[in-house]
Amino acid sequence: MQTWTLHDIAQLVGATVQGAPDYQITGLATLKSAQAGQLSFLANALYRAALTQTQAGAVLLRAEDAATYQGQALIVANPYAAYAQLTHYFDRTPKGVSGIHPQAVVSALAQVDPNASIAACAVINAEAVIGAGTIVEAGAVIGVRVQIGKNCRIRANAVIHHDCVLGDRVTVHSGAIIGDDGFGFAPHQGRWHKIAQIGRVVLHDDSDIGANTTIDRGALDDTIIGVGAIIDNQVQIAHNVEIGAHTAIAACCGISGSSKIGAHCVLAGGVGLVGHIEICDHVHITGMTMITKSINKAGSYSSGTAFDSTENWKKMAVRLKKLDEMAKRLRELEGIVQQLTLSK
Amino acid sequence: MQTWTLHDIAQLVGATVQGAPDYQITGLATLKSAQAGQLSFLANALYRAALTQTQAGAVLLRAEDAATYQGQALIVANPYAAYAQLTHYFDRTPKGVSGIHPQAVVSALAQVDPNASIAACAVINAEAVIGAGTIVEAGAVIGVRVQIGKNCRIRANAVIHHDCVLGDRVTVHSGAIIGDDGFGFAPHQGRWHKIAQIGRVVLHDDSDIGANTTIDRGALDDTIIGVGAIIDNQVQIAHNVEIGAHTAIAACCGISGSSKIGAHCVLAGGVGLVGHIEICDHVHITGMTMITKSINKAGSYSSGTAFDSTENWKKMAVRLKKLDEMAKRLRELEGIVQQLTLSK
Amino acid sequence: MQTWTLHDIAQLVGATVQGAPDYQITGLATLKSAQAGQLSFLANALYRAALTQTQAGAVLLRAEDAATYQGQALIVANPYAAYAQLTHYFDRTPKGVSGIHPQAVVSALAQVDPNASIAACAVINAEAVIGAGTIVEAGAVIGVRVQIGKNCRIRANAVIHHDCVLGDRVTVHSGAIIGDDGFGFAPHQGRWHKIAQIGRVVLHDDSDIGANTTIDRGALDDTIIGVGAIIDNQVQIAHNVEIGAHTAIAACCGISGSSKIGAHCVLAGGVGLVGHIEICDHVHITGMTMITKSINKAGSYSSGTAFDSTENWKKMAVRLKKLDEMAKRLRELEGIVQQLTLSK
Repeated sequence: MQTWTLHDIAQLVGATVQGAPDYQITGLATLKSAQAGQLSFLANALYRAALTQTQAGAVLLRAEDAATYQGQALIVANPYAAYAQLTHYFDRTPKGVSGIHPQAVVSALAQVDPNASIAACAVINAEAVIGAGTIVEAGAVIGVRVQIGKNCRIRANAVIHHDCVLGDRVTVHSGAIIGDDGFGFAPHQGRWHKIAQIGRVVLHDDSDIGANTTIDRGALDDTIIGVGAIIDNQVQIAHNVEIGAHTAIAACCGISGSSKIGAHCVLAGGVGLVGHIEICDHVHITGMTMITKSINKAGSYSSGTAFDSTENWKKMAVRLKKLDEMAKRLRELEGIVQQLTLSK
Repeated sequence: MQTWTLHDIAQLVGATVQGAPDYQITGLATLKSAQAGQLSFLANALYRAALTQTQAGAVLLRAEDAATYQGQALIVANPYAAYAQLTHYFDRTPKGVSGIHPQAVVSALAQVDPNASIAACAVINAEAVIGAGTIVEAGAVIGVRVQIGKNCRIRANAVIHHDCVLGDRVTVHSGAIIGDDGFGFAPHQGRWHKIAQIGRVVLHDDSDIGANTTIDRGALDDTIIGVGAIIDNQVQIAHNVEIGAHTAIAACCGISGSSKIGAHCVLAGGVGLVGHIEICDHVHITGMTMITKSINKAGSYSSGTAFDSTENWKKMAVRLKKLDEMAKRLRELEGIVQQLTLSK
Repeated sequence: MQTWTLHDIAQLVGATVQGAPDYQITGLATLKSAQAGQLSFLANALYRAALTQTQAGAVLLRAEDAATYQGQALIVANPYAAYAQLTHYFDRTPKGVSGIHPQAVVSALAQVDPNASIAACAVINAEAVIGAGTIVEAGAVIGVRVQIGKNCRIRANAVIHHDCVLGDRVTVHSGAIIGDDGFGFAPHQGRWHKIAQIGRVVLHDDSDIGANTTIDRGALDDTIIGVGAIIDNQVQIAHNVEIGAHTAIAACCGISGSSKIGAHCVLAGGVGLVGHIEICDHVHITGMTMITKSINKAGSYSSGTAFDSTENWKKMAVRLKKLDEMAKRLRELEGIVQQLTLSK
């Protein structure tokens, strides 16, 4: 295992050392679980109590926190950003070896850059193009004519279907299915007739697609994921959806067909959108909210009810079914009381 | 790329040509994105404005819309059905090559029709039967004794577990898992004891199972998907569920164990059903609704609350917890007012 | 097919035979679908009517039910537990053959026990350790340095990413992704900067992970699934979540980052938890509930609204947006009525 000194790390993140510059750091850990030799960080005031208890060998701190801390520290303006940067030095995710594994299956008609890495049981179909530095992990399947840029990572058992396009530095996590058919069927005499889905999926530069997420190909036009958009696990993105740049979509969201989400939006987990609506930039949607209409004003939106004991909840749920009646009774009562007041 | 003339296409869909019969069509596109050489369609009156702006080489139109349209048109009774039919001529999904790829793994005890297509890294286990015209894409796994009919398509990295049965023309999209174990455990002294799931999954003719959808095998009897049922991505269908013919289930729905859904139903996205209930034919359920009891009357059903700004929503949610109290206060007030009215 | 006599089965489950001890049983079935030669069971009084109609060759019954039943029976104290035990004798899930399939891909640096079974197109990466009796099915991918104990089953096309740890008798169902990256990004100047996820996933003994479920690796510390916890299909478990021993999580739940769920809890389908909360032991959460705060008292919890016809639901939803106003009007009216009462 590689180690760094406090001095080395201070150089990497532009920190000032409080303590012994040649102290050896072997790993990163939270304040609570860190041991001697490990580096931790304090980014959130809520954890200040943990700082007094930590066994960490050193802690990334703001100057004001370091002043009252007896242990070793690396003093930086933004400990969280420094931690984020340092995680990459301690990451043990395999890097991928350039070249094609002897048990990968690569079509003679595919173009794989010599600096790409294709793992065992990965399948690269005809006319696919794989850029330099891109890693295709074990069991991933790349369809015909797919174009993948540079320094992408297609993780184990992900699938990219035919003709889809990925920019540079795109990550598609394990089990994600990119470019399978949209749910397009024409009803006719009580049966569903399949409409071939002839658009593509385009994943722009730096987008990140979570494990077991599904992004369907467009019916005619493409389904589009914007630059730097980050999409968590088990998200469903239907045909012809467009997701704006730098938007974040948490796990288990479902975006129905042809809806457009702007840039810099944040959808918490389990959010649903109906189809054919537009969400403007900088919208935040709280968890498990269902959005049924377009939103043209930045801000935060919610639906649902607060949780309660099942006993209380049942009473509420029964009353709720009578809410329309209650509203009418209230109005009626207001009328009667007004008459009583007037007639006094 | 193959091209068709307007005359050719008119023959395919029974249309009348308005314009040059030998005009070459190279693809299909929406009114908004179509260019010269592309064919578009107007099916929804909402898009009539787009018709005046379109750059399409020709448009599939009803006679009444064609009368006022200056450009080239193919006049048909049902432009949407004509478009649906034509998509298949422009579909670039690979057709599959008959035979077994040298890097597929097919048990000597499996029966694969010579006109079936088995791709690289697909695994066909012992005693599986694969019918003529069926395509098993890369990385798909077919369990022992699985029976798959004719002209099915098992897409990349899908899994069909042992003993399951597929009819003809069934599609199982990528990452779908058919016939893994139902969630059956018997609680005993604070522990869960697994109940082996010895039923199967039966997917009847023309059913279509979405990407990363899971359909569990039955505990004893089978889990059954009816003829022509269409199921979108990331749907969970638990053990012993039965889905009726021609029912459509949109993405992210979850159907709990032993529930039965009738024929010609439509479940919008994110709907949940508890177990052991029955939904009759021709029921429509709106998005993210939770169904907790059987439904024996056709119609549309919903639950949840309308979305609002988070600020307004919070006020509502707080009030909602007091709804039972509000109802009691309203009743009390009605009593007092009645006394006041009587005592006047 | 192996068969058992009623006598054999009585020995297995400690039952008393009512009928012919040498009667041959060929399979298990529900009361409704059982035929001659099949064994059924009555565990739930709701199905007592089905007992009078059953064609089963014999039925597992409590003594009090057997007394009034004319057919053959196996009399036991707990028919459901006896049925659960017997399912394993009739289970046709392939057992796995010890050894490495010639078309599996196993790193020379991996340690695979001679009594483990590695199927075709499974990929075992360097330094992975696979224990005795463990089955790795077709297309499953095991990352570098992964440790898997004894008698585990990694089903077709599941993925275990690098450094994760599985105890003994752990099942990971098809398409499940264990140890892909948590959704960790630091926002900086309108962009998301990836934080490497350097923790692991630890699945303790006897845990069972459903098909297409995703369990993300920890950011720094590990994500932990407790002993005997059972997790259904399509569940999302984010980084640094901890699930207590013997807790059951039904399909489609989403557990946000760093939340902790106690032991012996039951989450019904579609439940969502926000991040950084704690749920104590013995909590039950009903289907599609969203939990937004810690729960420190055992019991049952719910959110949402009861379903209704869409027509009634729309009226309710509109009224609900005015609930805050209604509450204010009610209070005002109470004040007026109090004045009227006093002034009488």
